[in-house]
Amino acid sequence: MAHKIITVSREFGSGGRTVGKHVAEKLGIPCYDNELLEKIAEESGLAKEYIAERGEYTPKGGWLATAFADRSVNGLSVQDYLWTVQRKLILEIAEKENCVIVGRCADYILEGKADLLKVFIHSPMDMRAERIVKLYGETDEAPEKRLRDKDKRRASYYQFYTDMEWGRAQNYHVSLDSGKLGIDKCVEIITGLY
Amino acid sequence: MAHKIITVSREFGSGGRTVGKHVAEKLGIPCYDNELLEKIAEESGLAKEYIAERGEYTPKGGWLATAFADRSVNGLSVQDYLWTVQRKLILEIAEKENCVIVGRCADYILEGKADLLKVFIHSPMDMRAERIVKLYGETDEAPEKRLRDKDKRRASYYQFYTDMEWGRAQNYHVSLDSGKLGIDKCVEIITGLY
Repeated sequence: MAHKIITVSREFGSGGRTVGKHVAEKLGIPCYDNELLEKIAEESGLAKEYIAERGEYTPKGGWLATAFADRSVNGLSVQDYLWTVQRKLILEIAEKENCVIVGRCADYILEGKADLLKVFIHSPMDMRAERIVKLYGETDEAPEKRLRDKDKRRASYYQFYTDMEWGRAQNYHVSLDSGKLGIDKCVEIITGLY
Repeated sequence: MAHKIITVSREFGSGGRTVGKHVAEKLGIPCYDNELLEKIAEESGLAKEYIAERGEYTPKGGWLATAFADRSVNGLSVQDYLWTVQRKLILEIAEKENCVIVGRCADYILEGKADLLKVFIHSPMDMRAERIVKLYGETDEAPEKRLRDKDKRRASYYQFYTDMEWGRAQNYHVSLDSGKLGIDKCVEIITGLY
């Protein structure tokens, strides 16, 4: 039997990661977020920080730059290598148990391979800006600029590897505005759907 | 006090209209769908069928064709005239009472003018195809072709009048896949959020 898996895609600063964690706690199933990062690090031999930072970025300059990139693993660009490791681990997790997986295109990777509930969490810019400053502190860059940058990179990464549009409602079963509804209400809706 | 209004945008054949109707019934508030059409017909002097058919279509050829269109009311293209009537009536409804409004860019028109819960209902192509054949019968055109055509027109209309992207999760508070979740579950989630 296919395992029941909740994939949580999210805008940076929307609290989607927290939603995923609380959903998993409530349902008594594991949440793969940091754990997944650690597994990828172990399997790939790359540093966790590198993966966290680069694992959701498009190969710079697209396939052409990638093809000629000097840094490569087994003939693959590091980004593509990371993608294959990530994909393999996500498929293994899905084989093993019911769980929540945050980010990393798990929605796309597991399509047709598990009993999926695909969730997208977003939130208005001003509320996300407030949240990231509270969580990660101020930087030289305005929080709105940081958010726009992250959004752009995630959308571009998602598009590059899945050929689908990030944040398009039709790609998910449930999309929720955590700013309007609140984290708890999001958790309640998702657990109710499981 | 601003009235609490649920706006339901939907893909053709997703059952979004039915979701809106059932939500309104459950909450004991009016649902403006056919009623809105009748109001627009009365106020504009245009036939209900014309409004239903054309009220969600972009003026053909964009502003240039519109500017030179031979058919006009008070110097406006029929489409733009319809938009102003529709906008005025939606604002009047929002002044008057709590309600559900289906379609017609009410989410955009009422932004900042009411206590909004903005909903988008979508469903996979195959389930929508099955639904429209059951509801509206077969035609010479394949149901998938009819759906793609309608989707394109709605997206284009929405973009033209609101300058926003139709079906982008971030434009709504809740987006639900009625095919995956079922109509009843969608109704339950929305009434629970009201």
